[in-house]
Amino acid sequence: MAEAITLHPRDTVAVLPARADAGSTPLGTGAPLAHPVSAGHKLARVAMAEGDPVIKFGQIIGRASAPIAVGEHVHSHNVSYSEHDEAHQIGADLARAEAAIPDIAPRSFMGYARDDGRVGTRNYIALCATVNCSATVIKCAASEITAEGALDPYDNVDGVVAFAHGTGCGMAASGRGADSLERVLWGHATHPNVGAAIFVGLGCEVMQIARMEAHFGSAGTERFHALTIQETGGTRATIEAIKAKLREILPQANKASRSACPVSALRIGLQCGGSDGFSAITANPALGVASDLIVGQGGGVILSETPEIHGAEDLLLRRTTPEVAEKLLGCLDWWEVYAAQGGGSMDNNPSPGNKQGGITTILEKSLGAVAKAGATPLRAFYDYAEQVRTPGLSFMDSPGYDPVSATGQIAAGAQIVVFTTGRGSAFGSKPAPTIKLATSDRLMEAMPDDMDIGCGDILSQGVSIADKGEEIFEAILRFASGEKTKSEDLGLGDNEFQPWQIGAVM
Amino acid sequence: MAEAITLHPRDTVAVLPARADAGSTPLGTGAPLAHPVSAGHKLARVAMAEGDPVIKFGQIIGRASAPIAVGEHVHSHNVSYSEHDEAHQIGADLARAEAAIPDIAPRSFMGYARDDGRVGTRNYIALCATVNCSATVIKCAASEITAEGALDPYDNVDGVVAFAHGTGCGMAASGRGADSLERVLWGHATHPNVGAAIFVGLGCEVMQIARMEAHFGSAGTERFHALTIQETGGTRATIEAIKAKLREILPQANKASRSACPVSALRIGLQCGGSDGFSAITANPALGVASDLIVGQGGGVILSETPEIHGAEDLLLRRTTPEVAEKLLGCLDWWEVYAAQGGGSMDNNPSPGNKQGGITTILEKSLGAVAKAGATPLRAFYDYAEQVRTPGLSFMDSPGYDPVSATGQIAAGAQIVVFTTGRGSAFGSKPAPTIKLATSDRLMEAMPDDMDIGCGDILSQGVSIADKGEEIFEAILRFASGEKTKSEDLGLGDNEFQPWQIGAVM
Ligand SMILES: [Ca+2]
Ligand SMILES: [Ca+2]
Ligand SMILES: [Ca+2]
Ligand SMILES: [Ca+2]
Ligand SMILES: [Ca+2]
Repeated sequence: MAEAITLHPRDTVAVLPARADAGSTPLGTGAPLAHPVSAGHKLARVAMAEGDPVIKFGQIIGRASAPIAVGEHVHSHNVSYSEHDEAHQIGADLARAEAAIPDIAPRSFMGYARDDGRVGTRNYIALCATVNCSATVIKCAASEITAEGALDPYDNVDGVVAFAHGTGCGMAASGRGADSLERVLWGHATHPNVGAAIFVGLGCEVMQIARMEAHFGSAGTERFHALTIQETGGTRATIEAIKAKLREILPQANKASRSACPVSALRIGLQCGGSDGFSAITANPALGVASDLIVGQGGGVILSETPEIHGAEDLLLRRTTPEVAEKLLGCLDWWEVYAAQGGGSMDNNPSPGNKQGGITTILEKSLGAVAKAGATPLRAFYDYAEQVRTPGLSFMDSPGYDPVSATGQIAAGAQIVVFTTGRGSAFGSKPAPTIKLATSDRLMEAMPDDMDIGCGDILSQGVSIADKGEEIFEAILRFASGEKTKSEDLGLGDNEFQPWQIGAVM
Repeated sequence: MAEAITLHPRDTVAVLPARADAGSTPLGTGAPLAHPVSAGHKLARVAMAEGDPVIKFGQIIGRASAPIAVGEHVHSHNVSYSEHDEAHQIGADLARAEAAIPDIAPRSFMGYARDDGRVGTRNYIALCATVNCSATVIKCAASEITAEGALDPYDNVDGVVAFAHGTGCGMAASGRGADSLERVLWGHATHPNVGAAIFVGLGCEVMQIARMEAHFGSAGTERFHALTIQETGGTRATIEAIKAKLREILPQANKASRSACPVSALRIGLQCGGSDGFSAITANPALGVASDLIVGQGGGVILSETPEIHGAEDLLLRRTTPEVAEKLLGCLDWWEVYAAQGGGSMDNNPSPGNKQGGITTILEKSLGAVAKAGATPLRAFYDYAEQVRTPGLSFMDSPGYDPVSATGQIAAGAQIVVFTTGRGSAFGSKPAPTIKLATSDRLMEAMPDDMDIGCGDILSQGVSIADKGEEIFEAILRFASGEKTKSEDLGLGDNEFQPWQIGAVM
């Protein structure tokens, strides 16, 4: 049996790489286990009294809620979540973070250089619904024109994608909810992975096309087209009108072609979903190494999932400026109020699946989640779906929920999403593809058609975190240059477009 | 030119049935119009001073915010919304409402009689996603099995429908949001229009299948099947597993057949969307007559769209019991708080489209919205997506937003939705079809492929509201017996499944 892993010399717990039977003593010390304990779960390295800190990653992840013997299973039944009360030390680690930026020779990838200076990794035509009322017409137009073979002559077009959603009306016409939806729709229509876009509305909805254009200016309007069902004569007539417009647009969109572009043009969305006890030991720290390599080339990486960094914000505050720290802390304050709507709270995470996988507290999960952002300075804070134009590590506010968070990162300009998963995720995205990293060999075997890169060999074969990080970085460049991810081959990414719905449905 | 319509002798405004030119005097009195005024808009029948009531339907819809001359256009520029401060008179009109129940000979329709005593108007197989993570697998399974012709031998099955949505994780595990989603999913899986259902999850989501089953009991579990992507081996393996299960289920589901069933088995969802100035004069009151005919046969009609009855609640309170009144008033209080989340308010309605159509205040819109519920007593109050088993007129809480409201009514057991529209809607629904009523001849001509029944002839040809109501009632029986609606022919109803998302996205 593989040895239990101690992640940091200070730790009072070790992590099981494989299931341990009842009666076994995986740490070689203490009483035999009373029950079998699953992989990813924690065992006590030392005896703990009630109230003693439980330490993992060298950090306090909770406190013992009962006496814990050496070798005993440590989880929800004997650990409680304790507020992190250490004072914020803003900027304390900034110099060390600056030193962590790798100094490496410039690399390039084959991308679509756009007029505005940004670079695409794909070349889609986007149909954007302003409201649920136009969801069906854009979906039908996209599937019909594809089935009819109208795209076949255009090798440089990756497809027509329909961005349909459930909102756009029955909502406040101003405020955070409306602003977020506007940014998501406009961010997708103007995305570097999109060659041309058609907005389709019903006509009488809150999220008016004209209003959106006024809000964002008319830059590049020759790439944007718009129509409404009410003005076009109903469902069938609108489907035909969209298809006619697509036939007009396709030859122009097909003129785009790939050329060598610098890695500094890349913005990478960092995601995790269905985390398990291995996320923080394999895939997340390896992705952190890849993040640092992107940053070292002048590119950008986007950390998000605000509820999941809650409790580990000090790690970020110590490597950022007072200006960014103020925004991040304001954001976390906003979340305390927001989460309370409908009876939630900021320690709502981890999910039932996370708990089964061995994650006991949000603190423990957060420390693992932040690992994927690497070690460089936090340079900027962005609201959900705001355009991320700055290089380096950015934080963009979003829920932890995968489709909503990734939709915001893509709207912000991410041309690639990298997504770590332990329990197994079937996520995919458009127009920016998602690369999925499995935290274990078990998951790689259980969902082979969904996982792009396995990180379980860090445990099973002793691959170093640094080598795995370089492997991920090289894969990002290949996928950015046009190689298809597993989720692209499976056709995912249409139903996973999910703008964050903030505020009441009216 | 058609004459301006006065809806009630007390009214201080008349409604234009057609656009009036600048310089014309459509009321035959007052100064010529300074600007052209669109159809559905209001003109002043009398001079009003600032603060004077504006009266339509015999009810105060607002107050003049500036002096208004005879013949002048009356709209947002010179009307303000004023709180309705009349004391509630609960039950005052109950006897009159009882007398409004028509005493008519029993009628029947051809439906699917189910084991639990309910009757279906369609016979679908439902694929229900517990979470967005399983949206793509159920959509792919439904479209692939249909394209492969596997349904062709089964004439009694209307299709396989995929109920995918954007939520199910990243949410509080208990409370109003989780309860609502549970009711929607279970209500669709157990709907009388559904012969069998398969729940599909990712595996680690908040909205666990097992939890939902425990919540609702195991009645009829032989109709329900369940699987998860994580246990089945990923995206492609799950699509294949769903298709294999469907092939197993289809012969059994096909055994259902239509037989004569009483109208008392029907529950009809009442909807309006994209209302205009004609909604309240043509389609809504005509639907009100049809509602009364359904109730007279022992059937049930469901009024919803809580923000849209706001301001006209007294009309309902006067014809209900203290028990129901208390629930309705509690619901409206809840909405005041809910609407304020994200900066909305209860006078957020009417939408920009409604305003263009001539509706000035929510009061005016609400009076028109309530008309579709007819004149019978309000018998019961239900939460969103709660099972409506009682006969007569019920109120079910929901947003006004069409897809969310109709999804709740269908989850509640509505086997048919009747939807009035003035600006034009492209809505459709599954497993219960939606019948769309156009408020005007103009809309009937503008969107002929979407509209099932025109109500404009009430104005253009003097058809009585009573005759139009009977026409709608007869159409409901035909559509309930299997005749396809326009939106069914167009294939709508998949993307319009939109459970109400209440509470924070985490
Ligand atoms: Ca192509
Ligand atoms: Ca996560
Ligand atoms: Ca996530
Ligand atoms: Ca309405
Ligand atoms: Ca509505």
